[in-house]
Amino acid sequence: MSVELGKAEVALTIRAFRPDDAYAVWELLEPVIRAGETYALARTLTRAEALGYWTGADREAFVAEAGGRVVGTYYLKANQAGGGSHVANCGYVSAQDQTGKGIARAMCSHSLAAARERGFRAMQFNLVVSTNTRAVELWKSLGFEIVGQLTRAFQHPVHGEVDAFVMYRLL
Amino acid sequence: MSVELGKAEVALTIRAFRPDDAYAVWELLEPVIRAGETYALARTLTRAEALGYWTGADREAFVAEAGGRVVGTYYLKANQAGGGSHVANCGYVSAQDQTGKGIARAMCSHSLAAARERGFRAMQFNLVVSTNTRAVELWKSLGFEIVGQLTRAFQHPVHGEVDAFVMYRLL
Repeated sequence: MSVELGKAEVALTIRAFRPDDAYAVWELLEPVIRAGETYALARTLTRAEALGYWTGADREAFVAEAGGRVVGTYYLKANQAGGGSHVANCGYVSAQDQTGKGIARAMCSHSLAAARERGFRAMQFNLVVSTNTRAVELWKSLGFEIVGQLTRAFQHPVHGEVDAFVMYRLL
Repeated sequence: MSVELGKAEVALTIRAFRPDDAYAVWELLEPVIRAGETYALARTLTRAEALGYWTGADREAFVAEAGGRVVGTYYLKANQAGGGSHVANCGYVSAQDQTGKGIARAMCSHSLAAARERGFRAMQFNLVVSTNTRAVELWKSLGFEIVGQLTRAFQHPVHGEVDAFVMYRLL
């Protein structure tokens, strides 16, 4: 696929994270973590903690590159161990100045294919903040359903305690 | 509260886990982990791995003692970090020869009070295996609701892929 970057249409390439992507990935993660509006992660996480989480030994991390720039990143992992290990879980972050360009959609599609290749048979998002309507609609358009609603399960820095959704789809 | 142990009614005491409970707790965990029917944990976990999980630095572990014997154990932790850290999560295991005596119920009641004391405002069970009907009914009787259904999210060693429930209650 391609995305518009500046005035040009550029190809978007999704590939495995490499150690030399750490700087670029942290640049993507930091504003999202500091804002604390979409991920249930401590807003005070350091660079090392955040990268340790995002690229940990229990998961695979990927980056989306366009025109030589890393514009998105995601991870893929098993959501649970043992009898739950056939259900995948992912987290996605796109560059904040590139929203609406289809980067998150491309990463999610990539992750669904990658999950199938690795033998996962379902994918679950454990805590989609209800105020993150853009994400909720995007995941729905990619085949996920809201299968659970968690009352006041997320402390939003602006909106206070808001509901969160469990979203799920078979692969 | 008290439970019937052998022919006598004995008091059930719930207290913090101590290092010298490790043997007794592993005796409770091992059959549950090896069976793989109720917890999404690898059935091959070693004693050290299992105890490391159950009594890890991110949680508090407790034991239920009756007549000098450890007959149950549970842990209490935050289910998520950051904006999700006010929601608690617990896991409970009772001695298999003591089911139906109210040990799990006593531990869950204890955990609800302990969670409130620590400032948690909700409790969530992420994956209650649908075939574990005794647990589902017990949690319901303690105020939990099934707020989500995860289709075929658990590989049961006897029943194959079965659904799992997300159960939740405010505190």
